[in-house]
Amino acid sequence: MGLLNIREDIENAKRHDPAAHGSVTIALTYSTLHAVWAHRIHHRLWLAGARPLARAGSQWMRFLTGVEIHPGARLGRRFFIDHGMGVVIGETSEVGDDVMLYHGVTLGGTANAAVKRHPTLGHRVLVGAGAKILGPVALGDDVKVGANAVVLHDAPSGVTLVGMPAKPVAHLSPAELPQIEYSI
Amino acid sequence: MGLLNIREDIENAKRHDPAAHGSVTIALTYSTLHAVWAHRIHHRLWLAGARPLARAGSQWMRFLTGVEIHPGARLGRRFFIDHGMGVVIGETSEVGDDVMLYHGVTLGGTANAAVKRHPTLGHRVLVGAGAKILGPVALGDDVKVGANAVVLHDAPSGVTLVGMPAKPVAHLSPAELPQIEYSI
Amino acid sequence: MGLLNIREDIENAKRHDPAAHGSVTIALTYSTLHAVWAHRIHHRLWLAGARPLARAGSQWMRFLTGVEIHPGARLGRRFFIDHGMGVVIGETSEVGDDVMLYHGVTLGGTANAAVKRHPTLGHRVLVGAGAKILGPVALGDDVKVGANAVVLHDAPSGVTLVGMPAKPVAHLSPAELPQIEYSI
Repeated sequence: MGLLNIREDIENAKRHDPAAHGSVTIALTYSTLHAVWAHRIHHRLWLAGARPLARAGSQWMRFLTGVEIHPGARLGRRFFIDHGMGVVIGETSEVGDDVMLYHGVTLGGTANAAVKRHPTLGHRVLVGAGAKILGPVALGDDVKVGANAVVLHDAPSGVTLVGMPAKPVAHLSPAELPQIEYSI
Repeated sequence: MGLLNIREDIENAKRHDPAAHGSVTIALTYSTLHAVWAHRIHHRLWLAGARPLARAGSQWMRFLTGVEIHPGARLGRRFFIDHGMGVVIGETSEVGDDVMLYHGVTLGGTANAAVKRHPTLGHRVLVGAGAKILGPVALGDDVKVGANAVVLHDAPSGVTLVGMPAKPVAHLSPAELPQIEYSI
Repeated sequence: MGLLNIREDIENAKRHDPAAHGSVTIALTYSTLHAVWAHRIHHRLWLAGARPLARAGSQWMRFLTGVEIHPGARLGRRFFIDHGMGVVIGETSEVGDDVMLYHGVTLGGTANAAVKRHPTLGHRVLVGAGAKILGPVALGDDVKVGANAVVLHDAPSGVTLVGMPAKPVAHLSPAELPQIEYSI
């Protein structure tokens, strides 16, 4: 396993992306994987107290990949970002395993103080392109968020959230996932 | 004419962008034109079977321009992207002639399989900033899509789509185009 | 003071961003400050008639920072952009003092002619992530715009605008600012 979990992430990318090809191509060309792997190093640096270095590394990866992950954010295993340009993940965000975000997603803060001020996402959460999840809200496992939705409130496991502000539309089983147009 | 249609695209940029200046300035500084010209090469590589090379070129242009066009996408003549940061165009997208996209637009997929899963846009379609068009939907000629709209269903020619999910608001003639606030 | 107001902007960044740390770290790693400082030079070049150079500088900063500010735009003091990827500010935009934009915000045009065609923002306006403000609309002082909102009409001072198209939801005092979930 190790710190970076590179092999696991590449296998995961193949499952998520129907346009994906060989492992080497993925490892070299998926800049969103580079952003996640770098974050795992930055997060270790952050926890070890090397905060300016961690911040600088995070900003450098934003330049290289268009994905901005604050080094304080806690991200689970097989975390996957597709396309990724414009993603912003705030300092006190907490994300479970097997979560997938599309480009333009924000896990943003709403309090101007050094407290828990960013979202908490359960396992297998799927967030559509351009969606903004704001404040210390908690989304349960298997929650799906529609494209461009603005999420401001907690949601229980299994819910699909769409709209501005986002509201639940249905409870869907994982098997129904491919049909949720909003979610991708 | 040739593969790249550079002269035609520059003349087209001048028509679209009231802030545009001389041809040399446009050719050198419009990174969205660079993205489109590179895509025409990547698409030829893709069709010729050089898929990893085409993918790598596409990702490199995403880094340089903020525009991500899958090399499999089929784009018409005088295709123009303004500003462009965050644009994502999926593998099985098909786009007619004289189409214009603003920054943050997604032509995205909704099926996790190697089938037709991205949108088809007619001629002279105009898509506002941040709009997401998702799944194998078909938009007719002269369709206009408002900023931040989320389009999930087919639309006939001449319709203007706004909202989340997007709904038609009016049929407008090309002469009325400059007044459509949503569309730009 | 001088042209760039670097010290003032760094102090301002500390006030806005609870994740901010030392001044040197801010000056080196906040690419949105680099974009604003460069714009102040580009704007001087623009006014002096060096328009191709100003445009080229603006596009180069778009590449470096993900923030695209047309050199003709007039921005007030302590203008602050947080995160910034995908921000687009058009040529005839006018912005007051102490304005803050999040990433993905557009101050966009709706007329295809060289007239005033971009927004005018008052002092202390706050614009949430992904919001699009389109056309020569005027927003008063202390206006707040929600994430992903699409603003198409004028608004008086103190109003909070949310939705697509955006509508006023409440008049809020500056002291209530941290509670406005939409705005960040």
